[in-house]
Amino acid sequence: MNYDRIRAYMTKQQLFKNIGKKQSFLCIGLDTDIKKIPRHLLQEEDPVFAFNKAIIDATADYCIAYKPNSAFYESLGYKGQLSLEKTVNHIRQNHPDQFVIADAKRGDIGNTSELYARAVFDNSGFDAVTVAPYMGEDSVKPFLIYPGKWVILLALTSNRGSHDFQLTAGRDGERLFEKVLRKSQEWASDEQMMYVVGATQGKLFADIRKIVPDHFLLVPGVGAQGGSLAEVTKYGMNAQCGLLVNSSRQILYAGNTERFAEAARQEAQKVQQEMAGYLQRLF
Amino acid sequence: MNYDRIRAYMTKQQLFKNIGKKQSFLCIGLDTDIKKIPRHLLQEEDPVFAFNKAIIDATADYCIAYKPNSAFYESLGYKGQLSLEKTVNHIRQNHPDQFVIADAKRGDIGNTSELYARAVFDNSGFDAVTVAPYMGEDSVKPFLIYPGKWVILLALTSNRGSHDFQLTAGRDGERLFEKVLRKSQEWASDEQMMYVVGATQGKLFADIRKIVPDHFLLVPGVGAQGGSLAEVTKYGMNAQCGLLVNSSRQILYAGNTERFAEAARQEAQKVQQEMAGYLQRLF
Repeated sequence: MNYDRIRAYMTKQQLFKNIGKKQSFLCIGLDTDIKKIPRHLLQEEDPVFAFNKAIIDATADYCIAYKPNSAFYESLGYKGQLSLEKTVNHIRQNHPDQFVIADAKRGDIGNTSELYARAVFDNSGFDAVTVAPYMGEDSVKPFLIYPGKWVILLALTSNRGSHDFQLTAGRDGERLFEKVLRKSQEWASDEQMMYVVGATQGKLFADIRKIVPDHFLLVPGVGAQGGSLAEVTKYGMNAQCGLLVNSSRQILYAGNTERFAEAARQEAQKVQQEMAGYLQRLF
Repeated sequence: MNYDRIRAYMTKQQLFKNIGKKQSFLCIGLDTDIKKIPRHLLQEEDPVFAFNKAIIDATADYCIAYKPNSAFYESLGYKGQLSLEKTVNHIRQNHPDQFVIADAKRGDIGNTSELYARAVFDNSGFDAVTVAPYMGEDSVKPFLIYPGKWVILLALTSNRGSHDFQLTAGRDGERLFEKVLRKSQEWASDEQMMYVVGATQGKLFADIRKIVPDHFLLVPGVGAQGGSLAEVTKYGMNAQCGLLVNSSRQILYAGNTERFAEAARQEAQKVQQEMAGYLQRLF
């Protein structure tokens, strides 16, 4: 399906407009685990899609982006792939103002990254994909040839393992995540590239903003992982907001009864209301 | 399906035995591009599987491993996933002495890596998966809880972009790929971990062998990417061979007529014969 007929590409300006309209910079991570969804959904033909559809329709008023996490769909084989495709279709057709991110952390030699790009952009109609920087420029560039599509490059992740390599300083004192931020700006501008920075990284957001003052940052790690929204906005927000803060488990699994979607909606609204407070300085 | 009933896990010792028996350390990369396979296969119900099956049955005498490249299957949506599952089933059932690697370059926070591990080991029956190290220990460990399964960690890749970050030296002079090799040995032994080192890296194999003298290395980049098998074996071979050298395009697309599988067989045999020469010093 050619989704570009349904709506134009999502530009940075459009994202900012949506943030203002919704008074939210919430991204909901669709980490849908078949082992965690309410039992009554298991009677459905496609329980994962049924869960996602209900969650999306219940929460779309309070968020500006959805981020399906590839791993959860891959773990179900080709059926999971089908659930994922249906989920993206549902968002694109019913909530066309939502930014849709494939959280896939891909990256390989050029001819292989080309195929990954084809998978997420041509076939599945995502707006953006997360990419791992370890293999360098030619592993990232094939994702950038799609006009209007976004690469979200891992910079400083939310997990404990981020300390193993990302914080290693080079001879010039530059840490690996800083080198990734600096070097990757030679590959694309802030109109086509964002960075993943974990909410758990606190004051390091200030160091990051010195290198990428204008870029959007995709920020996982609020909620189940323990990051603080107050701290992220304090150190990470810029004049165009510049933040997409992700929450997954805290919203998806807010309830476990037949009213799970309503519970998710309330949880999303709670986060949105906190965000509206932080946005007062911008609008 | 429980493949572990078909054959036991592939240990390092078993791999070495297979190398001796076949006089080969060739891994064939199943980078099957539907745009490149012979036209007559497009009439088949599943052209990608038909191609893979023919290639595998024609080449299995000359190699010890197959490495399907995820991207090529993902680019075809859920149908590609089905082709991949059938391909792995075919190898496991008909060529049980082959080592089967998911070239997926995965890696994410712990709870997500768990799902990726479930996808490749529980559902698909692979022996090994390639993993990107950028996110550190807790992104790799979930793959290591499967007894008898292997992680193949990216160390020094074959592409030009390997220079962007992997070769950056830290304050102590240790380069990133060396830090990955050293640090990851705290997570698993050479009985469960291998490393990706590109054939194009030439003499750097000698530096790598100083840090991981006993590990197997998965070596892509011979053939289309220009790496030299002579150089790789000169600097990289150890007493138990310690090399799985991958070739993809050069073998898969050796012919483009109805006799494509025969052409692939001849190409694989040619590589095997060169390898047999290098193996003389070990057996």
